[in-house]
Amino acid sequence: MRQSALFTKTRREAPADEVAKNAQLLIRAGFVHKEMAGVYAYLPLGLQTLENITNIIREEMNAIGGQEVFLTALQDPSVWQKTGRWNDEVVDVWFKTKLKNGGELGLGNTHEEPLTALMTEQISSYKDLPRYVYQFQTKFRNETRAKSGIMRSREFIMKDLYSFSKDEAEHNLFYEKAAAAYARIFARAGIGETTHKTFASGGSFSKYSHEFQTVCDAGEDVIYIDDATGLAINKEVYDDEEVYKTTGINKATLREAKAIEVGNIFTLSTKFSDPLGLTYTDAEGKRTPVFMGSYGIGPGRLMGTIVELLSDEKGMVWPEAVAPMRFHLVSLAQGDATVQQYADDLYDALTKAGASVLYDDRDARAGEKFADSDLIGLPWRIVVGKKGIEAGALEVVERKTGTVTTKTRAELIAFAQA
Amino acid sequence: MRQSALFTKTRREAPADEVAKNAQLLIRAGFVHKEMAGVYAYLPLGLQTLENITNIIREEMNAIGGQEVFLTALQDPSVWQKTGRWNDEVVDVWFKTKLKNGGELGLGNTHEEPLTALMTEQISSYKDLPRYVYQFQTKFRNETRAKSGIMRSREFIMKDLYSFSKDEAEHNLFYEKAAAAYARIFARAGIGETTHKTFASGGSFSKYSHEFQTVCDAGEDVIYIDDATGLAINKEVYDDEEVYKTTGINKATLREAKAIEVGNIFTLSTKFSDPLGLTYTDAEGKRTPVFMGSYGIGPGRLMGTIVELLSDEKGMVWPEAVAPMRFHLVSLAQGDATVQQYADDLYDALTKAGASVLYDDRDARAGEKFADSDLIGLPWRIVVGKKGIEAGALEVVERKTGTVTTKTRAELIAFAQA
Repeated sequence: MRQSALFTKTRREAPADEVAKNAQLLIRAGFVHKEMAGVYAYLPLGLQTLENITNIIREEMNAIGGQEVFLTALQDPSVWQKTGRWNDEVVDVWFKTKLKNGGELGLGNTHEEPLTALMTEQISSYKDLPRYVYQFQTKFRNETRAKSGIMRSREFIMKDLYSFSKDEAEHNLFYEKAAAAYARIFARAGIGETTHKTFASGGSFSKYSHEFQTVCDAGEDVIYIDDATGLAINKEVYDDEEVYKTTGINKATLREAKAIEVGNIFTLSTKFSDPLGLTYTDAEGKRTPVFMGSYGIGPGRLMGTIVELLSDEKGMVWPEAVAPMRFHLVSLAQGDATVQQYADDLYDALTKAGASVLYDDRDARAGEKFADSDLIGLPWRIVVGKKGIEAGALEVVERKTGTVTTKTRAELIAFAQA
Repeated sequence: MRQSALFTKTRREAPADEVAKNAQLLIRAGFVHKEMAGVYAYLPLGLQTLENITNIIREEMNAIGGQEVFLTALQDPSVWQKTGRWNDEVVDVWFKTKLKNGGELGLGNTHEEPLTALMTEQISSYKDLPRYVYQFQTKFRNETRAKSGIMRSREFIMKDLYSFSKDEAEHNLFYEKAAAAYARIFARAGIGETTHKTFASGGSFSKYSHEFQTVCDAGEDVIYIDDATGLAINKEVYDDEEVYKTTGINKATLREAKAIEVGNIFTLSTKFSDPLGLTYTDAEGKRTPVFMGSYGIGPGRLMGTIVELLSDEKGMVWPEAVAPMRFHLVSLAQGDATVQQYADDLYDALTKAGASVLYDDRDARAGEKFADSDLIGLPWRIVVGKKGIEAGALEVVERKTGTVTTKTRAELIAFAQA
């Protein structure tokens, strides 16, 4: 895309009321727009980044047998009343609204209830199990505190998968598959090394749940990391001696760190299938409740975490797999028709070679262009200037390391195709 | 996808309270689930269909220079108060809700206000114009009447594009481009021949707007079609003699028809840029209000219209470009290992050839499979039975026409690659 045509501009300052580093950088670079506290719109570069993250998650969910659906934001109270979660004292983040022709509705903050109710129409026999169903859907949470940018917002897209199994043994097999898929997602998104599978409290039906926690000073959680295994323990179960017996982890060697919860997986057992009547007939003809699990990742939170973790004093640093474009082609033409022609041609050639390119064809100073390029943080900057053209090799700067190399036009095309 | 693994099942009857033909068929075929009146969830086959429609629209919007964003559902009253549209007497479809820490919020039923406000940060000079910005975003409308299935729902995805131009002349150029793009979308979606560009009332700032109306008895609108030009006139301006002077259409030859509004394009002029202060500095240094237009299509309504229009007594009939899969491979193995092996192999080969295939590998009677296949309505049914295998040519049934032909395995693979 030509930057002169892109409708967003970079800005020097984030809004004064924005305290989160991720939102400050994303707003300055034109990736997101702050609508109000805790509510952010995604602009073209931000939406493309979010889409790239979404696609990684979708691929991994499909690979473990997930089937995608799109449930609704508007929620009928009746199904939530069956589990007791319509009550504002039980779930304190509801947004509620009213139908014009009478009756209250809620805005979905999670989707266990409606999906479990829906599955009663689709599951009747053991032959219908197991099933894995997921969606990317906007969740609404009436947060009183919304100061973490896109990492904790009042309206955000969430990938939530729910598993429906015949029994605990079948559930456990999928639970481990899902954990492995989550590890792959965070690795592909570029934060695998600092993300730890973490034991956390399991609620009323299971001893533990698992979180995926990314070590970062901006995190709201405290975890204790076992460097030998890479596993971690959430502070909430740190004093529970059971956890050390179960896991074999040595409490004495743990290292404390602040962390961001980027995903969680949960054994639900029959917590929802019991009150909502989701049962199946087993091979012996007996009605049995379906054994469930839930698995969540917020693509926006993941995007915010990447910004918090990988940015530097100049701006953002996107990993290749999530960057909105791979290359930032920066023309230093400034009125020189030969340079501009060369840059135009190279842009066309790189695009034709299949590369995603942001082409800074604007009539602006080199310093301004480089500052914008650092802020936006695409993986590779290609600089088209008179000197490079004459030398037959252009400067290529890796954003992550700052390493400068030179490449001929042919080498650049080959690189773009790689 | 193997139908035995698909979590949705077909059903004989739609819910008793569902009166719309589109929703009845979509529910029976397992494409959508009715959450409550006017609120529908999309299940795998329905979501894939919706995605196919969305992608056609996205391609056409990108082709005319649209840049995609994702605005928010939660709406801050302050920006709507500036245009007077926060008032429930002015806009009667608001869902409103409350923040826990005080203050009322709305759920977006359209996005002129927030996008115009956002653009004040991005547009300052004539060099920043024109700009075209669009999104696919959930809209919420508190409809008292919601009896048209997915064609008029309380929560639905809408593609809304907004154009920002320097003046009316620049606007008009884009307006015609957008109209042509809309015509291409409806043609690609398979309803081009019965969809008419229709003159409708223009509101306060422009003489006319244009709707795209698809002739269908389930429609809520009445239009008058000029068969000579293919243009139509909405009943609301039928008695306005101006429309005949402007268009040259002969009122005497018009044909009345019921129709569904599948899209609309609107000249907004400075209706929103004035109150929200969206101005630019022109080449002479004068501050000038930006001239706007809006362009909407509901992918769900389009999907519902296709069902209303193209279904028959046996079920739905999807055009190739929007069908969730192109082929329905129906195995009549029923315990015959040779037939099942042949069908399994053919499924793998067709998939490898790049075709999208729903493979009915279920252990069920032929009659049940054919009835389900007719109901689901994929374009091509391939029947794998003993007779066909022995004859070296399988039966291929075109859903639209019912035409039966036979094709060898090699011919099927070539067809799948086409």
